[in-house]
Amino acid sequence: MGGDYAPANVVSGACQALHEAGGRFRVVLFGPEDTLRATIRDQGALPDGHVPSPDQYSIVHAPEVIDMHDPATAALKTKRKSSISVGLHQHRDGLVDAFVSAGNTGAVLSAATLILGRLRGIGRPTIGALVPTPKAPCLLVDAGANVDCRPQHLLEFAIMGSIYVGAMRNIANPKVGLLSIGEEDSKGNEASLAALKLLRKSGLNFAGNVEGRDIMSGELDVVVCDGFVGNILLKFGESIPHFFKAKFQTFARSSPLSSAIALVAKNGLRRVMKEMDYQEHGGVPLLGVNGVVIIGHGKSSPKAIKNMIFRAEETIHKAVNRNIQEMLTQTDA
Amino acid sequence: MGGDYAPANVVSGACQALHEAGGRFRVVLFGPEDTLRATIRDQGALPDGHVPSPDQYSIVHAPEVIDMHDPATAALKTKRKSSISVGLHQHRDGLVDAFVSAGNTGAVLSAATLILGRLRGIGRPTIGALVPTPKAPCLLVDAGANVDCRPQHLLEFAIMGSIYVGAMRNIANPKVGLLSIGEEDSKGNEASLAALKLLRKSGLNFAGNVEGRDIMSGELDVVVCDGFVGNILLKFGESIPHFFKAKFQTFARSSPLSSAIALVAKNGLRRVMKEMDYQEHGGVPLLGVNGVVIIGHGKSSPKAIKNMIFRAEETIHKAVNRNIQEMLTQTDA
Repeated sequence: MGGDYAPANVVSGACQALHEAGGRFRVVLFGPEDTLRATIRDQGALPDGHVPSPDQYSIVHAPEVIDMHDPATAALKTKRKSSISVGLHQHRDGLVDAFVSAGNTGAVLSAATLILGRLRGIGRPTIGALVPTPKAPCLLVDAGANVDCRPQHLLEFAIMGSIYVGAMRNIANPKVGLLSIGEEDSKGNEASLAALKLLRKSGLNFAGNVEGRDIMSGELDVVVCDGFVGNILLKFGESIPHFFKAKFQTFARSSPLSSAIALVAKNGLRRVMKEMDYQEHGGVPLLGVNGVVIIGHGKSSPKAIKNMIFRAEETIHKAVNRNIQEMLTQTDA
Repeated sequence: MGGDYAPANVVSGACQALHEAGGRFRVVLFGPEDTLRATIRDQGALPDGHVPSPDQYSIVHAPEVIDMHDPATAALKTKRKSSISVGLHQHRDGLVDAFVSAGNTGAVLSAATLILGRLRGIGRPTIGALVPTPKAPCLLVDAGANVDCRPQHLLEFAIMGSIYVGAMRNIANPKVGLLSIGEEDSKGNEASLAALKLLRKSGLNFAGNVEGRDIMSGELDVVVCDGFVGNILLKFGESIPHFFKAKFQTFARSSPLSSAIALVAKNGLRRVMKEMDYQEHGGVPLLGVNGVVIIGHGKSSPKAIKNMIFRAEETIHKAVNRNIQEMLTQTDA
């Protein structure tokens, strides 16, 4: 049970998922047992609350809490009774089919990699991020899990991203671009230039080098980069609506007419801004581990948690891991 | 004479600068002589046009044109009679005190580095970019000139950026951040972690690691990164207003009320968006070469060209290069 609004949002989201799924799956909640029981009971009093029947869920006591300030290794070393540690061990042992968390991303990443292990042929598991575009969202991978990537790692990210996006959106050959500083094959840094060559013979639907401006164009399904670049890019992108808002407020204060215009436009703008907040889209998969792990933003809403559970269900049904493994074998990656 | 709107915008900008400067400096125009003479003559017919007196300017014939598709080495190899090549040679020989161009950035960068040479102690000259913030713009350096940077190069970018921003804004100790994936000293990639150590003992007003979201916060005067990251970030940032515009148009079409709101808000929004276009701010310096070189966007307006000329004047008067050299000596860099 992790995230800034745990257990409230996590429990609400899980209960909504159970309500909508109508018996397709059960949910196991990991966290402090008494708190979880009380939070489930309280659902009945919420506007959209649903109290699931006892056969729809179970609770596994995990009293320790890994917060955002704990080191990434906490689940493995100091807090082995945290929901991350207990839940991932149960997933490894086959007691649950997928693991969903809005907790400390670094802790989930390292615990999942070590407890579940990596898929055969994968050097580095990866976390992608969905970036909004005028068309379907684009998966930027790696979003920050891995820095100093070797060309082979970038190839792996491309393969995992392509298979995941293909499965989730039911498209045959997602278009994959390699993030660089120019479209020509001669543009890039050492790692990207070498990765370009690997990607050209990968069998993926590879668009070659793409630039920063192409990410949100809607022309690409997957954009591959080193996690150092990915993390910086995503945090930069997140900050732009804040800048825009500040500028808009300055504009609104500049004259009575501006103020009236701003008042009229406010709601429309808010709607547009919301779409730029890619955290709204719910969780993203941790790809490359031997299991199904969906990671959400610390501030995940109940709706985001619900969507993460459905995403986990879909990832299982679409056999994403088996497909990654097959593609790796085909490309000799 | 370079840029997408050369010679018209370049000549107009130069003539405006001469008009406003009132004899503080002379301008030398490099380009096809007949065309330049005709363009200057035509200024009289423009709404804001000023025809300078013959003693305010001179023309040096440079008939060849390096376009955006030419390789970066064109000025040195195939097109030695281009304005970039002729102008930089005149700058090297002391015939002009600064060189301003809206032409092919890569060509200016490589020609300037080879023709003018580097400042002593500088491994890699750099181009910064001014990113808008709610306060003063932030200089992001390197903006794309150098990929695969060593820690020492990042230190040099920080020193050059700090001195340039300090001189231009008359501030004593510009606040410098190192772009990374977390604020803690343990966060980063190999190059950034090593650069962090160099920067901690550099004597600069160093804020440590900063994240993508800090660039536009207004809390930093200079943000240092590898040019691979810088280029991708800037192009990504440039694309966001386009995305926003597309979303706003969808909103405007969604209902008659939305359409009315959009109509009312349009001009205000356009004003806010314009501020996000950092290309509007005019040119940026090529730092680290043995000379004063200001590079502008290919689409520079006459106003941008005028501001580039004034920026060159200021860079000379503030002795930016001498100060860089002194700082390098002090830090043993």
